[in-house]
Amino acid sequence: MHSDRPAVTVIGLGSMGSALAAVLLERGHETTVWNRSVRKAQALVDQGAHLAATPEEAIAASPLTIACVLDYEVLHAVLDPAAGSLAGKALVNLTSGSPEQAHEADAWARSHGADYLDGAIMTTPPGVGSSETMFLYSGSHAVFETHRPTLASLGDPLHLGTDPGLASLYDAALLGLMWSTMTGWLHGTALVGTEKTPATAFTPVALRWLTTVTGFLTTYAPQVDAGRYPGDDATVDVHAAAIDHLIHAAEARGIDNALPELLRSTMERAKAAGHGSDSYASVIEVLKNPADDE
Amino acid sequence: MHSDRPAVTVIGLGSMGSALAAVLLERGHETTVWNRSVRKAQALVDQGAHLAATPEEAIAASPLTIACVLDYEVLHAVLDPAAGSLAGKALVNLTSGSPEQAHEADAWARSHGADYLDGAIMTTPPGVGSSETMFLYSGSHAVFETHRPTLASLGDPLHLGTDPGLASLYDAALLGLMWSTMTGWLHGTALVGTEKTPATAFTPVALRWLTTVTGFLTTYAPQVDAGRYPGDDATVDVHAAAIDHLIHAAEARGIDNALPELLRSTMERAKAAGHGSDSYASVIEVLKNPADDE
Repeated sequence: MHSDRPAVTVIGLGSMGSALAAVLLERGHETTVWNRSVRKAQALVDQGAHLAATPEEAIAASPLTIACVLDYEVLHAVLDPAAGSLAGKALVNLTSGSPEQAHEADAWARSHGADYLDGAIMTTPPGVGSSETMFLYSGSHAVFETHRPTLASLGDPLHLGTDPGLASLYDAALLGLMWSTMTGWLHGTALVGTEKTPATAFTPVALRWLTTVTGFLTTYAPQVDAGRYPGDDATVDVHAAAIDHLIHAAEARGIDNALPELLRSTMERAKAAGHGSDSYASVIEVLKNPADDE
Repeated sequence: MHSDRPAVTVIGLGSMGSALAAVLLERGHETTVWNRSVRKAQALVDQGAHLAATPEEAIAASPLTIACVLDYEVLHAVLDPAAGSLAGKALVNLTSGSPEQAHEADAWARSHGADYLDGAIMTTPPGVGSSETMFLYSGSHAVFETHRPTLASLGDPLHLGTDPGLASLYDAALLGLMWSTMTGWLHGTALVGTEKTPATAFTPVALRWLTTVTGFLTTYAPQVDAGRYPGDDATVDVHAAAIDHLIHAAEARGIDNALPELLRSTMERAKAAGHGSDSYASVIEVLKNPADDE
């Protein structure tokens, strides 16, 4: 298979790794793949991928190797025996893990002469290949710049900084935002559901409301950076009073209240810390300082 | 003051009531106002508002009265003595309260011959008057249709149903979503802040990510209505494993973990209820059934 686009190797063909390789093939990259179980490679080989016999051979085939495996234990099991082929190569690691694991992988790769870029994929496999999908990267700026066209085939690549742990840290922070938002939405959906409102009726209203909420976040971000939280339109006191309506309405309808009760106690801690007249952004001050009794 | 637009009365001139009256005046409505403290009416009178001497006189001045006061206790203190002027009028109540209070106010208004519409304002005062701002209404459909042009001056009016409690119930559900989202964002902001990432750098990435998350909600809403939660791309098991990265990263950096720990325990309850292989939407099943030990 002839191609104008840079050659790339993909190690790990789970659902995400397979999606990465498939999109690279679609975009015309000469793509080499390796997976512990060969069976998962067959569909990609049918689409034109080269199948390497070993991780070492896979890494040797391309200037850039993208690794996407289950976890760092698997990563080391696969790459350690192939370390000899890493010199002069670029390694992009999209395996999920902690910032500390990313730091360790960066040191390991550099000790073998490779240049290391860590990454986090902010989508599920069907979202790979969309220019709307964010791929977060941190670590070697040279790898990011040299291989940007290849990385751009997978989604919109953002370089967060040279600290290789940043992509994992952002990933954790963004997933936390996702779980908070999804659980808050499910709680609201359960609440209105008690009065026979379908989720499909509530959700479009909830999504419009979220665009208003994102406006609040944009207002609050510079307050957080300044450490000053003017409560111009809605104070922590006002929020803390309003959440009682939610808790009572949910309690009256038999809906679990653990989430609203935690939110209320967090607001109460902010009030106790002197932020009652500040904006909701001031709640970050108590999140920075865990409760003593926890 | 002459005007082509329908006359309207606004009772209650706190920051929100004043914003409502100011926008109605701007849009050319003949506007009558009343407030317990006359002082707050002066700026509006300067803009052309009529100042009524009593709530009774205020209600008599217009076919439509909008009430926006601190709470239902104040609402009754103000309106009960003016009940005699309500016959044949439309009353739109934008006072924050519970669905039960809305039901009671509806019965009270109808017993005095008024047609009642309850409402919730999904913005802070500066957002009044924007066509992007949702005003949620429930109760009399006739009031909503007859006075839609006036209501549309204040924002985008949505009628949720004839049950007068629905606007308050949606309000509680949407505020819960807001607090969950804002607190999740603050937690993530605190987390990346430990590595010197400013809130103003993290937040644009978080907002892009939220648009991806809203796509998940759109996918999950019909799953909730069907009571079936196919875990095609990410299961509760996968989420429950991934949240450990967040909890460890936050713990290592001294960030409060009460919110992620609650989210994890909620996921664990979903797993224990047999939803490990289902999508995250299945978590609603445990929210519908409070934990026994709470």
